[in-house]
Amino acid sequence: MKIKAAVMTGVGRPLEIQAVDLAPPKANEVLVKVEATGVCHSDLNALNDSTTPTPTILGHEGAGIVVEVGPNVTNVQVGDKVALNWVPYCGRCEFCVTGAVHLCESAFGPMFNGTLLDGTSRLSKDDNIIFHYSLLSTFAEYTVVPEMSCVKLPDEMPMAQASLIGCGVATGYGAAVNAAKVTPGSTVAVFGIGGVGVNAIQGARIAGAAKIIACDVKPANLEIAKKFGATHTVNVAKDNVEEALKELTGGFGVHFAIDCSGHTEATENAWKGTRKGGTVVVVGAFNPHKVLSLPAGGFHRVGKILRGSFYGDVQPFRDFPTIARLYLDGRFMLDELILNRLKLEEINQAFDAFHDCNCINVGRSIIEMPVKTDTQTMDDCEGFEFVS
Amino acid sequence: MKIKAAVMTGVGRPLEIQAVDLAPPKANEVLVKVEATGVCHSDLNALNDSTTPTPTILGHEGAGIVVEVGPNVTNVQVGDKVALNWVPYCGRCEFCVTGAVHLCESAFGPMFNGTLLDGTSRLSKDDNIIFHYSLLSTFAEYTVVPEMSCVKLPDEMPMAQASLIGCGVATGYGAAVNAAKVTPGSTVAVFGIGGVGVNAIQGARIAGAAKIIACDVKPANLEIAKKFGATHTVNVAKDNVEEALKELTGGFGVHFAIDCSGHTEATENAWKGTRKGGTVVVVGAFNPHKVLSLPAGGFHRVGKILRGSFYGDVQPFRDFPTIARLYLDGRFMLDELILNRLKLEEINQAFDAFHDCNCINVGRSIIEMPVKTDTQTMDDCEGFEFVS
Repeated sequence: MKIKAAVMTGVGRPLEIQAVDLAPPKANEVLVKVEATGVCHSDLNALNDSTTPTPTILGHEGAGIVVEVGPNVTNVQVGDKVALNWVPYCGRCEFCVTGAVHLCESAFGPMFNGTLLDGTSRLSKDDNIIFHYSLLSTFAEYTVVPEMSCVKLPDEMPMAQASLIGCGVATGYGAAVNAAKVTPGSTVAVFGIGGVGVNAIQGARIAGAAKIIACDVKPANLEIAKKFGATHTVNVAKDNVEEALKELTGGFGVHFAIDCSGHTEATENAWKGTRKGGTVVVVGAFNPHKVLSLPAGGFHRVGKILRGSFYGDVQPFRDFPTIARLYLDGRFMLDELILNRLKLEEINQAFDAFHDCNCINVGRSIIEMPVKTDTQTMDDCEGFEFVS
Repeated sequence: MKIKAAVMTGVGRPLEIQAVDLAPPKANEVLVKVEATGVCHSDLNALNDSTTPTPTILGHEGAGIVVEVGPNVTNVQVGDKVALNWVPYCGRCEFCVTGAVHLCESAFGPMFNGTLLDGTSRLSKDDNIIFHYSLLSTFAEYTVVPEMSCVKLPDEMPMAQASLIGCGVATGYGAAVNAAKVTPGSTVAVFGIGGVGVNAIQGARIAGAAKIIACDVKPANLEIAKKFGATHTVNVAKDNVEEALKELTGGFGVHFAIDCSGHTEATENAWKGTRKGGTVVVVGAFNPHKVLSLPAGGFHRVGKILRGSFYGDVQPFRDFPTIARLYLDGRFMLDELILNRLKLEEINQAFDAFHDCNCINVGRSIIEMPVKTDTQTMDDCEGFEFVS
């Protein structure tokens, strides 16, 4: 079928809206009509990364409706509303069988090669290959994705909000709920208030934390953190973090610290400001040339835990519907994460927004491509032909 | 009552066998006839530490028989065989009520001051105070200890073996079973083969580990490790540890690493040789002037866990009887931990053994003071008068 997509043609270039060819889903694949997709900072990173196979269609946060299923698909049916998951898992490896599906690496080879799981692409233009990105390529009207990337959501879930769940929302929520395992009545520090950090705050809030302390260098971000559930704030640029956290927790330090900042210094401060037996979760990606340095004195004595968390230790089929349900019940804030709503043709504005110094990196630009109604004609489709 | 004890009279001096006075147990205290006591490296450290309150009676690994209970004691009865626990917990603090009784600090003040929990001593000589050590002071025929230090064992448990349970045995076993939570079929590396390390190996063996890799700089220790259950060895002084561990585990690294060495370099190697999602437990006390340095690259991605463990995260009333039962069932090796058996009068030989370069720091000298039989007369007691 012919579809309209925003194509990355080369490093750092504006995306080009093109008509491209999308082949039907093969076995264990699903054709999804993309209804909404978020533009994530990782898409910008990929756009500026010379190792990204091009031409490609970026986009890895998305939600839509199943319009066709390939052979052997049992997980979803035509008409299902789905949020997309960019870490589909195999279900058979050591990590999957022990419940750590977020550590499954089976999809990584194809993902880095820009194909689907079978090593081939469904995307082309004039018989030349177009690569997939993160197995999802949501900056397009339609996409073919692995069955395991499709997580069914309740029918009443709005698609713009649903599109956010599969990346930063799940990562932040999962860092608090799955990795830190925040408990009711506990104290939690969240470092780095961005698209992941605010959702770690939300996860901590929903898990019943008594105090949620947002730690960031930007006063504006600290204000935003309060809207999402932070009860206290620490300005890392001004305050002694260890002292501030201890002062807010009766001298003990927090039970849980979640570092979404990507700075080793923040994790080192988080470690010092965490109480005996407490847990520090590292969510952000550090500069690989750095070293994480922890004081050795009394290390064994205090019984603290330090752990990395990838993708919020998410089990998508458990956590995505949970987050959607929490949203529908008014308990998880997703509307507030939507910075603006754009059409696919306006997608470069979303990338431009990352360069805007005044941009607070919490919200997302959402690209919306709602389903056409019966009264629409093919003329409404701006010249693109839909043949499934 | 008058008792015979080995008294530390000053820093680094040989212990002196003296007749001292022991007052009866107060509320929540228990008078125990010490049947056997291990001489631990921590006793040597205390002997050489100028901050140890003196005169004192060292000894914190012991087992014996309850001969009198003070008011309000409900946990043990006269005649019970008990192993002694030097970290009695309060049962009421945040750590106790969440199951982390090993992190309870309620006993630490009195412990460091050389008293029992009420801030006073039951020990004296010529009306001058003698300090307690670690609340236990087991280098004596009798001792008064907190009720919460007394863990009842099966009647058939031999006392020399029982005396070992309360320190290095529980710490090593607990590091594997409680802190690392070693699982059946897993791969485990144990760094530092000493009195704790061999018991971490035993804990891993009993928890069903498939491969147990002993890592040490001394070939003789690696040989001993095999006797306790190590299936493979790595000579840290010669081999590249990360490569060796990965080679032994299909390229992945171990599931669990337990560092009993006290060296930050060992923990850093353990971290590198542990697989994605794996756990590194630090049991040994680092030099407090050191820094633990971990590579920052991919830290969040690999989902590893690093944690300190104090006293093997032991719950004494669960774990001591478990270890005793495992011993009685022939599954936990304690006989092999007994280096030699000495009388109380020979205790300085045990300290001398620590200075012997040929001493492999795995076994313990046990001081035995068996219960006197009915046919013994007070003359057998070498002039000491027993009045309870």
